[in-house]
Amino acid sequence: MTPDEFRQAGHQLIDWIADYRRQIESRPVKAQVKPGEVAAALPAEPPAGLATIDDLLADLDRVVVPGAFLAQHPMHYGWFPSNASLASVLGDIASSGLGTFGISWESCPALTEVEEVVVDWLRQLTGLSDAWHGTIHDTASTACLVALLAARERATDHSQARGGLSTHGSAPVVYATAQSHSSVRKAALLAGYGSDHLRIVADVPVTRALDVADLRRAMAADVAAGRTPAAVVATVGTTGTTAVDPITEVVAAAAEHGAWVHVDAAMAGSAMLLEEYRPLWEGVEGADSLSWNPHKWMGTILDTSLFFVRDVQHLVRVMSTNPSYLQSNADGEVVQYRDWGIPLGRRFRALKLWFHLRLDGVDAIRDRIRRDLANANWLEEQVTAAPDWELVAPVTLQTVCVRHRPAGVTGDALEAHTAAWCDAVNDSGRAYVTRSQLDGSWMVRVSIGVEQTERHHVEALWELMQQAAAKTAAP
Amino acid sequence: MTPDEFRQAGHQLIDWIADYRRQIESRPVKAQVKPGEVAAALPAEPPAGLATIDDLLADLDRVVVPGAFLAQHPMHYGWFPSNASLASVLGDIASSGLGTFGISWESCPALTEVEEVVVDWLRQLTGLSDAWHGTIHDTASTACLVALLAARERATDHSQARGGLSTHGSAPVVYATAQSHSSVRKAALLAGYGSDHLRIVADVPVTRALDVADLRRAMAADVAAGRTPAAVVATVGTTGTTAVDPITEVVAAAAEHGAWVHVDAAMAGSAMLLEEYRPLWEGVEGADSLSWNPHKWMGTILDTSLFFVRDVQHLVRVMSTNPSYLQSNADGEVVQYRDWGIPLGRRFRALKLWFHLRLDGVDAIRDRIRRDLANANWLEEQVTAAPDWELVAPVTLQTVCVRHRPAGVTGDALEAHTAAWCDAVNDSGRAYVTRSQLDGSWMVRVSIGVEQTERHHVEALWELMQQAAAKTAAP
Repeated sequence: MTPDEFRQAGHQLIDWIADYRRQIESRPVKAQVKPGEVAAALPAEPPAGLATIDDLLADLDRVVVPGAFLAQHPMHYGWFPSNASLASVLGDIASSGLGTFGISWESCPALTEVEEVVVDWLRQLTGLSDAWHGTIHDTASTACLVALLAARERATDHSQARGGLSTHGSAPVVYATAQSHSSVRKAALLAGYGSDHLRIVADVPVTRALDVADLRRAMAADVAAGRTPAAVVATVGTTGTTAVDPITEVVAAAAEHGAWVHVDAAMAGSAMLLEEYRPLWEGVEGADSLSWNPHKWMGTILDTSLFFVRDVQHLVRVMSTNPSYLQSNADGEVVQYRDWGIPLGRRFRALKLWFHLRLDGVDAIRDRIRRDLANANWLEEQVTAAPDWELVAPVTLQTVCVRHRPAGVTGDALEAHTAAWCDAVNDSGRAYVTRSQLDGSWMVRVSIGVEQTERHHVEALWELMQQAAAKTAAP
Repeated sequence: MTPDEFRQAGHQLIDWIADYRRQIESRPVKAQVKPGEVAAALPAEPPAGLATIDDLLADLDRVVVPGAFLAQHPMHYGWFPSNASLASVLGDIASSGLGTFGISWESCPALTEVEEVVVDWLRQLTGLSDAWHGTIHDTASTACLVALLAARERATDHSQARGGLSTHGSAPVVYATAQSHSSVRKAALLAGYGSDHLRIVADVPVTRALDVADLRRAMAADVAAGRTPAAVVATVGTTGTTAVDPITEVVAAAAEHGAWVHVDAAMAGSAMLLEEYRPLWEGVEGADSLSWNPHKWMGTILDTSLFFVRDVQHLVRVMSTNPSYLQSNADGEVVQYRDWGIPLGRRFRALKLWFHLRLDGVDAIRDRIRRDLANANWLEEQVTAAPDWELVAPVTLQTVCVRHRPAGVTGDALEAHTAAWCDAVNDSGRAYVTRSQLDGSWMVRVSIGVEQTERHHVEALWELMQQAAAKTAAP
């Protein structure tokens, strides 16, 4: 395809995207397809002939759009917001169009240095000190794995440089609460700690915050048994209920054993753009690493997960490789991001952040986040005031966790009722919320924060929830 | 930013990209910036005001383009090609515009199912049997790590479900030659095997292929010492010289010990689109996993690395998590790609491949690959025929490894001469080649395969190399 063919097809595609985004609200939030239906709409064998851009746009309309969950729909309250602001989409398009690739500073100096600068802007915008050095990973899952690898190596005196974990005497241990994200468990298992050495620390009733006394007990017991406390993962804004672990106390407890503290602020990081919310991660300056996702609430399109560390030298020692074909005359003077994470090659992701911050502006992003927090407070008030409705957790950010508990409905009947009204809301196509378990019991998470979600949308959701609950509760 | 603002800015950006791509050949291949120069051109503090798309396009011209290595330049012969065909860029733009996110099948059924279908097209196009099931990872580095994690768990009877590697009795061992990619060593260290348990198997002189007799000896010695052969990484097209390990023999040797075989065909995979090149990976059907990068020679824009496995159940057992908030009514009927790799959230990467295959067509892609192979053969002939020039390795694909060895220049003087003429070529801005070490001695890799590289470009490079070598060899 020549640049001029691209120009013409690109204009058509931009128009298609603008039209698609403009009419999102008229479509069902949840894809109305059954398993296998999308695949069945495509040829099982590779296409032999050539298609035009018109053919492909028609295929997007015919196959992809009906099979797409509309994360950008203002009535999407599921999981966490996954905003893809159009300003950041432009940055992503610029990155694709440039066609650069980062495997070393020399393979694209701008890719490396714009990332350094823009990530540092985010550091400043969230009030972190300049002791932190950051990069962009694809997701917070990867960030957590990198953190637990760095922690493993620090706890085992760099066992990777010798016989690895299998010949290391003392088992390293990871600590986190049951409220921590599934990626913590995954990272601990992938990093080789083993399920037996992932310590599930108690969380405090109501707030679901990490119980520091239990953490201390667990670490002491491990030390007594000859094991090594290697890492504590503290969460600011858990996935279930946006609970907040007490970072200051966690840092103090971990320091007694030299354990690495990783702060997972995947969701709450966006709120740290607001000075008034920074008490939520008070003590973060004592942690060793932290990550948060602009690709959630803040709205820089996936995949944009920030990862900050304090000891870059240690990170690089754990993650580096330096084969001869990647050496250059600039070595030693420049950052080599391949040594900060898992992949060698990287996209020019910083452009998404750059375009987003400059085209939308930080003030507008902050205003939007405040709007969402106010909307969550409004919904919290409605739920609190409504008969038969209950909050299952304090509202610390923009996620409201609720249950509808009609008189006399308990046990399995309550579980079935929760599932039924939640499914009714979602199957309507008019809104989407997420079912989640807390202490083995189903509740429903209403996670507010899509870029296009205004107060009237939240009002419409609340109306829909009440209708669905009343209908499914009726005998 | 509203859809209509996006429409207008998007059209400007598309034009900017088309113009940029059209005039790439008039620019220097290698960025002419010094370390820190790009960063210094940006404000150190976060921008407070709003920018327009015009401002940002001006900044791209002012800051990014001068700092960009032009991987799409027809005179780029460095590392390996990293093509970013404009057809695939359109698919990438569609993905960004849709703003979907994949954390489960339900979070975007089309994202999952289009990936299943399109990856299966690639399986068919490269002649693999339907025993293989594939997904898209970001890079072959990640694919290798996933493979070595799967191998580790198979060799340790799923130690992650118990005490992890530190309490497992027998050390698992990884085998690969010194010619294997740096990501193999990195993956082995990150997966916890440890440097002492990464066995560097000898490679055969001249072809640099894995020496199977040495592999057998090493595995037998490890077993005798109580260690467990866990994985062999066999490369089809090494980074240094595109050497090809003998897969059939590796598979047979590994089978004697139940070791996992991962085939790293990151570069050579594109050649497998040509039936006549498939003998290079003969025996691949006996391997456990394999990866290759359409984002290299084939030209689907980064990040598009294919990863195929035979035993999906085992992979999922190693990589899965299933928290309540990701459970849905479709579970069990659908593929959950989060259980095939490290990140939870994924972009809609399959659109890049889909657009590329349909807009450019498989026939054109195959023709281009054949053109590059012919160009490499042409250069090989020139080097062989020229006095004082030598091939340092057989040309198996599209990379020609050369040294200029004027009479009487040996030892350190030869090393310095090689570095000097290579730097002269690169610093000219007219072409770019990569210096690499083989047996501790510098040579120069000419890796042909940029989408826009025609025969006359290779002729111009050969002229430039001869001039640079003659000039630096002059006393």
